[in-house]
Amino acid sequence: MDVAPGRTLRVERQRETLRVVIDRPDRNNSINDTLMRDLHAALDEAEGDPTTRLVVIEGSGPVFCSGMDFGDAADSNRADDGLAARGGQVFYGLLKRLASLPRVVVSVVDGRVTGGGVGIAAASDFVYASARSSFALPEALWGLLPCCVLPFLIRRTGFQPAYAMTLSTLPVTAEHAARIHLVDEVMDDARPALRRLASRLTKIDTSVVADGKRYFEQLRQPAERHEQVAVTEFARLMSSPVVRGRIAGFAQNQLMPWENR
Amino acid sequence: MDVAPGRTLRVERQRETLRVVIDRPDRNNSINDTLMRDLHAALDEAEGDPTTRLVVIEGSGPVFCSGMDFGDAADSNRADDGLAARGGQVFYGLLKRLASLPRVVVSVVDGRVTGGGVGIAAASDFVYASARSSFALPEALWGLLPCCVLPFLIRRTGFQPAYAMTLSTLPVTAEHAARIHLVDEVMDDARPALRRLASRLTKIDTSVVADGKRYFEQLRQPAERHEQVAVTEFARLMSSPVVRGRIAGFAQNQLMPWENR
Amino acid sequence: MDVAPGRTLRVERQRETLRVVIDRPDRNNSINDTLMRDLHAALDEAEGDPTTRLVVIEGSGPVFCSGMDFGDAADSNRADDGLAARGGQVFYGLLKRLASLPRVVVSVVDGRVTGGGVGIAAASDFVYASARSSFALPEALWGLLPCCVLPFLIRRTGFQPAYAMTLSTLPVTAEHAARIHLVDEVMDDARPALRRLASRLTKIDTSVVADGKRYFEQLRQPAERHEQVAVTEFARLMSSPVVRGRIAGFAQNQLMPWENR
Repeated sequence: MDVAPGRTLRVERQRETLRVVIDRPDRNNSINDTLMRDLHAALDEAEGDPTTRLVVIEGSGPVFCSGMDFGDAADSNRADDGLAARGGQVFYGLLKRLASLPRVVVSVVDGRVTGGGVGIAAASDFVYASARSSFALPEALWGLLPCCVLPFLIRRTGFQPAYAMTLSTLPVTAEHAARIHLVDEVMDDARPALRRLASRLTKIDTSVVADGKRYFEQLRQPAERHEQVAVTEFARLMSSPVVRGRIAGFAQNQLMPWENR
Repeated sequence: MDVAPGRTLRVERQRETLRVVIDRPDRNNSINDTLMRDLHAALDEAEGDPTTRLVVIEGSGPVFCSGMDFGDAADSNRADDGLAARGGQVFYGLLKRLASLPRVVVSVVDGRVTGGGVGIAAASDFVYASARSSFALPEALWGLLPCCVLPFLIRRTGFQPAYAMTLSTLPVTAEHAARIHLVDEVMDDARPALRRLASRLTKIDTSVVADGKRYFEQLRQPAERHEQVAVTEFARLMSSPVVRGRIAGFAQNQLMPWENR
Repeated sequence: MDVAPGRTLRVERQRETLRVVIDRPDRNNSINDTLMRDLHAALDEAEGDPTTRLVVIEGSGPVFCSGMDFGDAADSNRADDGLAARGGQVFYGLLKRLASLPRVVVSVVDGRVTGGGVGIAAASDFVYASARSSFALPEALWGLLPCCVLPFLIRRTGFQPAYAMTLSTLPVTAEHAARIHLVDEVMDDARPALRRLASRLTKIDTSVVADGKRYFEQLRQPAERHEQVAVTEFARLMSSPVVRGRIAGFAQNQLMPWENR
C-alpha cells in the first residue's frame, strides 16, 4: 500500500487558513489508511503553526466523502479479524482528533456525503453545505452500523434524527441536515462565512479554542457534576493575568480585548 | 375484565406491514390493561414473523390515543396503592418494548394525542402526523407528571421542548411537533412515505434493526464510554461472514448488498 | 458597596405575576453582587406568596442583560483569587435557583443579551423574545468561557448550537435562537402569551411545578436509571388523595380537575 503523503489530499495554506481537499475522485473520496494518515499529517501542520486558526476540509468533485473504502476493507478481511477492530479504533481516533484539535475545523460540503464521511462532517466544529448536498448512512444495508460516526452525529443532532437516518438508510437534504444541526448553515458560496469566522478567530487565543473543546467534553458527563466543573473552570480562567489585564483595561479605559495585548 | 384479543385493537397484516389500529372510540382510545396486553400480543405477532418488517400504529377516529383510562384508574385506586406502581411499570415496559422491538415501528397520527398517547408516539421509531394533529401533556392539571412518557419524549426532543409541554400543559401543533422532532414528518397521506420506508426495510436484516436499537441505547450512557462501545460494536459487525461477503462482492464486482445474498 | 434592595431591579406584583425588571441602564444591565442579591430577594418574595405563579424577568432599555459587570470584576481581581471562584459559585447558584424555583419563570427579552445574560434567559422556564433581540457569548474574546451559562444553555439547545455560539463568539438573531430552542417563541408583544400561560398556571398546584422541575433534573442522569425513576415518581404522585379524588371525579362525573378541589 502506497503511503506517500499528499497522495489522497491537496493541502494549501492561505493566511490563517489551512485548506485540505479530499482528492480520491477515482475512489469516490473514500477513506482508507493512507487518507487517515495524510489527514493526521495535515492536522499536525495546522497544530504546529500558531498563525493557523482555521482548518477547512473540502471534497474534490461531486462527492465530499463516501466513507470506508470497501476495496481496502475487502483486502483487510482476507488478512485477519483484528484489522476490523483496529480500523474502527483508527477512524474513531481521527474523528476525536478533529473534535479536539486546538484550531477551528470547518467542513465545507458541496455534494454527497455518506457513511464515514458523515462522521468527518459531524466531528467538525462547523459544517457549511451547499443546497445540493446530501447526507446518508447506508451502513444497515450492508449489515453494519455507523458505529464510529454516531457519537459525533448524536452530539450535533440529538438522538432521534441520527436514529432515523440509521434505521431508514435514506439520504437527507442539506436543508433537512440544517434543521437537525448536522449542518450549521446552508450556503452555496462559503467564502463570506469563512472570512467572517476567520476574522473572529484571529482575535481568540488558540489556547481558548482548546479550553473550549475540552470544557464541552466535560459537560457531556452526567448533569450532577456540571456545577463543580463550571465553577472550577471559571476560577481557573479568571486567575490568568492576561484575562485580568483585559478586564481591567475594559473597566478602566473601555479597551476591547484585542486592543489590549 | 374481558381480555379477549382484538377487543381494543384492529390488527391486519399487509405484506411486510402489520397494521395496528387503536379502536376504543367510546373511551377516546385511552389505555387500559387490556389494550396494553393486546398491543403486546400484536407485537409478539410481528416479532414472530420474519417477513414482517414494519409495525404501523394508528388510532380510529379523531383521537390517536388519550393516555391512561381514568375509569380503570379510578377503579384501581379503590383497590390498593401497589396498583399505581404496577401500572407505571407495565406502561413503561410497553414503551420500552416499542423502542426495542426488532422491527421498525411507525405511529401514523391523524388527530389528538394526549398524555400516555404521546408516549406511544415518542417511543415509535418514526412518527408521521397529519397537519391537523396535536400533542399535549395535561398531566400537571391533575397533579400528575408524564413520568413514563418523558424519558422517551426527551430522547426525541431534548430537554426544553418536553419541559415546556409539561409545565405549560398547552397542546402543540403537528408543525411545532415536527420542529422539536416529536414528529418526523408532517403529511396528510402517510402511504407514500410508508411504501418508501418498507421498500428500504425489506433490504435490511431484522437482526440489524435489533442491533441498531441496542447500540443507540448504549450511546445514551455517559460520553466517556462511547469510544469503547463504538469500536467494539464495529469489530463485532465486521466479523460477520455475511457482511464480509457483501463488502467483497461490492469491491470486486460492484454488487449492491441486496444483490449478494 | 450599596446593597439596598430595589437599587438594581424594579419589582412589581400584578395578580399572579411578579414582574422583575433589570434596571442598571448606566452599566448595560450587567450583573454584579448587588443585582444577584436583589434577584434572590425577588425570588424569595415570589416563593413566599402562594398566589404568585409566574415570575417575569425583563430588562430596561435596549439591553436585556450584558453579563458580568467588568468594573466590579476588575475590583475583585485586585483583592484575591478566591473571589473569582466565589463569583462563579454565586452566579451558578442564581441560575440553579431560577431553574428549580417552584414558580414558572419567563424571561421576556427585547434587545441584546450577552454572556451571563444568556444564562439568565437559558435558566428560565420560558423565553419569549422580540424579533430585534440578539444573543451572543463573547467570552472567548476575553480568554474566558461561558462556564456557568453552558450547562443551562446546552439543556435548551443541545451540544452543537451552544458550541457554535461559544467558538464563533458571533451573535445569533431571535429567529435563530428560536430554531435552537434558546427562545421558546418570537413575539413582539409577549402579553397575550403571558396571559395564556398565567391562566393555565392558576390551575396547576405550585407543588407540581416543583415536582416537575425536580423530576426533569432526575432524567438528566444516565439513561439506565430512567425506568426506575419514572416508575417511582408515578407511584408517588398517584398515591396522593387529591390526585385520586380528581381522577374519580372525572371518571364518575366528568369533572375537570379544577372543578373538583
